[in-house]
Order: sequence, then structure tokens, then C-alpha cells
Amino acid sequence: MNTVITIGREFGSGGREVGVRLAEALGYAYYDKEIITAIVNDTDLAEGFVKDIMDGKTRPFFPISIGQTLNLEMDYQIRQMQSIIKSQTEVIRDMATKSNCVIVGRCSDYILRDMRDDGTIELFRLFIYADPESKLKRCREKEAAKEGEKMTDKELEKHIKRVNKERAAYYEDYTLQKWGDKSNYDFCLNTSCMEIEKMVPHLAKLFE
Amino acid sequence: MNTVITIGREFGSGGREVGVRLAEALGYAYYDKEIITAIVNDTDLAEGFVKDIMDGKTRPFFPISIGQTLNLEMDYQIRQMQSIIKSQTEVIRDMATKSNCVIVGRCSDYILRDMRDDGTIELFRLFIYADPESKLKRCREKEAAKEGEKMTDKELEKHIKRVNKERAAYYEDYTLQKWGDKSNYDFCLNTSCMEIEKMVPHLAKLFE
Repeated sequence: MNTVITIGREFGSGGREVGVRLAEALGYAYYDKEIITAIVNDTDLAEGFVKDIMDGKTRPFFPISIGQTLNLEMDYQIRQMQSIIKSQTEVIRDMATKSNCVIVGRCSDYILRDMRDDGTIELFRLFIYADPESKLKRCREKEAAKEGEKMTDKELEKHIKRVNKERAAYYEDYTLQKWGDKSNYDFCLNTSCMEIEKMVPHLAKLFE
Repeated sequence: MNTVITIGREFGSGGREVGVRLAEALGYAYYDKEIITAIVNDTDLAEGFVKDIMDGKTRPFFPISIGQTLNLEMDYQIRQMQSIIKSQTEVIRDMATKSNCVIVGRCSDYILRDMRDDGTIELFRLFIYADPESKLKRCREKEAAKEGEKMTDKELEKHIKRVNKERAAYYEDYTLQKWGDKSNYDFCLNTSCMEIEKMVPHLAKLFE
């Protein structure tokens, strides 16, 4: 039976690093941006559009009652959204079926829950988070390493909040569950006071 | 520098077992009911009374404005509560100062936070929780092992909810923080799909 580790993560918490290192320590496949690429190939939609939808930047309008007044533009948007959701579900379930893997984001914890319930896979759902100061520090360090104009701390704080709000919106639209609510996860790790590099080898042992 | 692991836990989640096994695996002191005993010795209050207060069963009346109308009975209750809180703080800080240890419950994560901030101790704050069915199963097994009349599943469910509500109330009165909110902890572990006995040795490695 394949073991699948899904990682929900606050922007700025180092969740991606946890995922990469965990996959490396366990010798598992690692999926993050590969999911977007697979959906783009599957749906023939533009990469930027798929990414914006999955990052929660674009929230299509869901009419409560679909009647005669629904215009074609709205209908088209909803069909696109539906095809992304359908593809996302298939792509992630396919990844989980193929081999042991770590999957970052994209509601994978929710998408795979029934494969755990029916005994098809062993599933561990992680959520990685951090204190606001710690998220700011991590983003500031990444910003410093970038070329070109840098964001100020105030701009960074705003950016962190916005990205996390968008992630929450996409997760909540898709799953009708609260993003980051610990009852939907098996392990929630606050990375504020730990070195991810040192912690991961021990964490990995829990899933062997 | 001493390492202190505090364990907040939902009733029925196996948090106490995690604490006992973690202390054993690490060779740390373990404090749980010892805290009540130390407070009883310190305050000369009756053990049942101290326990009821700390379990959130008795919530003394906190008047918003203390004026001439305050009667002696209320005044007496508040003094008792204050002496418990003062003693609880001293007892827990003393335990953390003495040696490496695991401390279960009693707002210890909150009481020790400034000893971490000023570098006196290394502090890891755990919160142990579980899905409702898993808590019921664990309690049902304990109930079956007891002598005498057994609670039905419905009674057990009600009991679990009540105890957790009381724990939340005490924590929230004392700390003004939300009990079980992951932002107040470093690790939150859902014990629903793990064997505590197998998991703890690996978990322990994170704190060595």
C-alpha cells in the first residue's frame, strides 16, 4: 500500500521546504508545481489561469440558483472551474496510486481522504504553520536573496496575509472545510522555533 | 538549559499516555497529578476543591467592577482562586527549573512562555487531540476495563464533551487564549490514526 503525505502550509512557514526534505529523506516522489502542469496538459487551459484559480486569486462566481438569467460568460467560467476541479482530483488521485509520495497543497488532504478510508493508501495529513514574526523573517530572507527592487517589511506583511487569505479561500470553496483547522490534519507543525533541516529526519521516521 | 515539554490534551485523545511514554523515552521527570498535590500542600486548600477549580468544574465569579456591593463570600472565593493561580504558577515554574521534564495540562504552556522567551528553558508545547469517534473508542475501552456500572456510548459522548468544555473554560479563564488553538503550540498531534506506543520513540527524537 502506498504511503502519501499531504502538506497544507501557510505562506512563509517553510512548508515547501518540509515537503522537499521529507520526500528526500523517505525516497518518495514529490509533487508541487507538477500538479499545475498536469492540469494544464489535461484541460488545455492557460497555465496562468489555472494557477490563479488554484492559488485562490480568481474566485469564479457560483450562482445559488442557476436559471434563465445565467449569462453565457458566467456559464463558461463555471465550466472552466469545473474542469480544473475534475482534473485536479484525477491528477492527485493518480499520483497517490502510482507510488509513495509527498503532495504539497492543492486540497490533496481532502481529495485523498476516501482512499484512506477504503484502505487504498496510507495517508498522513500535515499542516505547516508559523508565528507572524517567523513568517516575516523567512520571507525577508528570501526577498534579500532576490534581485531587483525589494518589498519593505510592511509590504511583505501585507503580501503574506493576502496569499494566506487566498489559499484559505480556495481550500474553503473546494472542500467546505476550514483551512488550517487542526481537526482536518494528523500533524500540525509550527516551524517558528525549529530548524527544518534538523527536524525533518526525525519527522520522517514517523511515516516509515 | 532544561528542556520542558508541555502537553495540552483533549480528554479521550491519549494525551496522558503520550506524556508518560515521552518522559520515559527521554528519561525526563513527569508531572501531572503531582501539580495538584504540590498546590494543595502550598495553599492548605482541600484537594477536591483545588481539583475542581483546575479541572474547570468550578468557575468562581469574577466581578467586572469590585465595589461596595461585593459580598464577603465572593471576596473569599476570589482570594482562594487567586491563591491557586499563584501557587500553580510557582509550582510549574519550579518544576521547569529543577530538571528536564514533561508537564501535562494546567496551562503550563502559557505559564512557561516567558522562560522560553528569556532563554531560561527550551520549551516545546504539544497539543494532543483526536477525532470524536476515536475519543469515544478510547473511553469505551477504559470503561470496559472498569468494575461496576458502565456508561453507555451516549453517556460517554456527553461526558467527553463536558470534560473538554471544562478544560477549555479553565484554560481560557486563566490565559485569555483559545484552548487548542494551534497558534499557541509547536506540535499538534491527532492520535486517531496512530499507535501512540509506536509513534512516541520517533517523536521523542525531535526533542533530544
